Amino acid sequence: MNLNITKPTLILDKQKCLDNIKFMTEQAKDHNLVFRPHFKTHQSAEIGCWFREFGTNSITVSSVEMAEYFAENGWQDITIAFPFNLLEIARIDKLAAKIKLNLLVVSENSFDFLIKRIKHKIGFFIEIDTGYHRTGISANDLLQIEKILEKTKQAKLVDFKGFLTHAGNTYQAKSKKEIAHIHFDSINKLKKLKAYFRKDFSELMVSIGDTPSCSLMDDFPDVDEIRPGNFVFYDLMQNKPGICSSEQIAVAVACPIVAKYPERNEMVIYGGAIHLSKEYLPINDGSKLFGKIVEFSDEKWSDPVAGAYLSSLSQEHGTIKINPAEMEKFKIGDIVGILPVHSCLTANLYKSYLTLSGNKILKR
Amino acid sequence: MNLNITKPTLILDKQKCLDNIKFMTEQAKDHNLVFRPHFKTHQSAEIGCWFREFGTNSITVSSVEMAEYFAENGWQDITIAFPFNLLEIARIDKLAAKIKLNLLVVSENSFDFLIKRIKHKIGFFIEIDTGYHRTGISANDLLQIEKILEKTKQAKLVDFKGFLTHAGNTYQAKSKKEIAHIHFDSINKLKKLKAYFRKDFSELMVSIGDTPSCSLMDDFPDVDEIRPGNFVFYDLMQNKPGICSSEQIAVAVACPIVAKYPERNEMVIYGGAIHLSKEYLPINDGSKLFGKIVEFSDEKWSDPVAGAYLSSLSQEHGTIKINPAEMEKFKIGDIVGILPVHSCLTANLYKSYLTLSGNKILKR
Repeated sequence: MNLNITKPTLILDKQKCLDNIKFMTEQAKDHNLVFRPHFKTHQSAEIGCWFREFGTNSITVSSVEMAEYFAENGWQDITIAFPFNLLEIARIDKLAAKIKLNLLVVSENSFDFLIKRIKHKIGFFIEIDTGYHRTGISANDLLQIEKILEKTKQAKLVDFKGFLTHAGNTYQAKSKKEIAHIHFDSINKLKKLKAYFRKDFSELMVSIGDTPSCSLMDDFPDVDEIRPGNFVFYDLMQNKPGICSSEQIAVAVACPIVAKYPERNEMVIYGGAIHLSKEYLPINDGSKLFGKIVEFSDEKWSDPVAGAYLSSLSQEHGTIKINPAEMEKFKIGDIVGILPVHSCLTANLYKSYLTLSGNKILKR
Repeated sequence: MNLNITKPTLILDKQKCLDNIKFMTEQAKDHNLVFRPHFKTHQSAEIGCWFREFGTNSITVSSVEMAEYFAENGWQDITIAFPFNLLEIARIDKLAAKIKLNLLVVSENSFDFLIKRIKHKIGFFIEIDTGYHRTGISANDLLQIEKILEKTKQAKLVDFKGFLTHAGNTYQAKSKKEIAHIHFDSINKLKKLKAYFRKDFSELMVSIGDTPSCSLMDDFPDVDEIRPGNFVFYDLMQNKPGICSSEQIAVAVACPIVAKYPERNEMVIYGGAIHLSKEYLPINDGSKLFGKIVEFSDEKWSDPVAGAYLSSLSQEHGTIKINPAEMEKFKIGDIVGILPVHSCLTANLYKSYLTLSGNKILKR
């Protein structure tokens, strides 16, 4: 690989990324689901275009700013999958005038504010907490849901799209079986709501979002839409319980080696918390893993170097644990690749991607 | 406070920041030390000017890019306190042509490369590992140090400045006593090297860097220069073992409240890992603390709300644990402040600061 890299650089394997997009597009098609991928992971208009070539025309984002960016780049149907932030009503309203925009409502309180202040037609999902306990109305809180939907019938500018959940608890699951348990438990709760409220809202949808379920499951009863995001790159967090293989991980951070310490089985790279994020995976001996190590050659990278891992990060330094035999392959001034623990957070730290063939891909 | 905040915003209390700069300037003056503050924490030309008003004219940075930025902003004497990265020799050489630039040498190997390739006069420190075991030549490895210094005598363009260490192990210390132990142990090792090599390099300096020692210690025997950085803002990591008070913390992230869940003692803010970083402090019950909560009023913020803390972060969501009585003070759409665990990593995520009086301060 000859990309003239001199400092930490986010490298994208475009083919792996396209394969991941193709896989999830087919997963949606096979199960007759609307595919509304979450673009918070890549945050790039150009990568967005790759999705469009696979037929995607509706997307998910996690902030108003991100919605504005993708709207400017031609996306006309966007769900902001984050609890409606009252303080951004002016920007939201302005954007709703231009595109088909959906928000998440997580309480009657903020819904009241929305219907009072919105001046343009806008869609909304009620976010349902099916067990992750981050945001959303509890699936059991029929009373609050009914109150919102009663008000909806009177409100002219808001259009109820359906029930949405993010079963983020699958990210902590340790096996496919555990993911399946969460997936079906979550869907079951949404199914009941769908059945109950369909009398008044015949077109209401059920939308789910987590990459683990969307990647692994073969059955999506009563689900109408999926919104996974992370799958576009995957990462070690998804690789650990087998949601993806390490070959499917489509990003790696290229980092120069600046020091070697064979006496303590360590080498140090230019590449720290500001290049990777401090997300980690706990490993058996109680220590932390901040990334795995790959070698670049001929427009590709290798499988992870056996036994080697990024064991600590400060602002700009990264320390790699590696046995002396493996370390001998590397010299100071070489570039190694780091597979990230959480690609969403790592990608967020860069202004662009560099593909293995040397093309720069801009981000938001 | 009426700053029209609608999304996560990095707020700077300028007065606290000036007090911190004044404190550390005096600490250096009182002990007859050169003050070469580390600018990686704030990364702002404007905040750099505040230092200049206190008499600072030499600084530390952690990357070549950062050195270029501060050189463009008038700084003429810069140490890049990061192991010399061979791959950036061209940029380093270009910068060395313009300003007084110092590098860190951490091995004979990379020193050989430096003296072969550099075309302009450049200073260097030998980084000594006094016990942190991140980078640097072991304080016991006299042989390697001697080899480098022998070559230095022949090399015309490199100027040996002295021995530098970063006793980063003080960041894990739990008490002032433990910090003092590390501080004096570290200095003692450098003192021996200074005594030994002074015969050939009469002006060699000893430079130390960690904010804990520089903040708390009253004795710096044989030390010539200090390079603390974090103190400019401090943070919860420094507050925990008593290195600073919570009143000295000069930055807070203002975040909108988007949901309240009194039934589980939680409220959710717009403010996640991409606004704060995933740095955490472990707390007694085994859970993680990602920040403490403050309230804004009249161009200031309050003491931390007792018992409340940021307990989890996803990309854009933050979950606050707070008891129902305290929670009643807050409503959806209010702004709360988050004191960061690690201000260097938090500040790095923003393009600017907003002062409590509403001035925007640009960053690199």
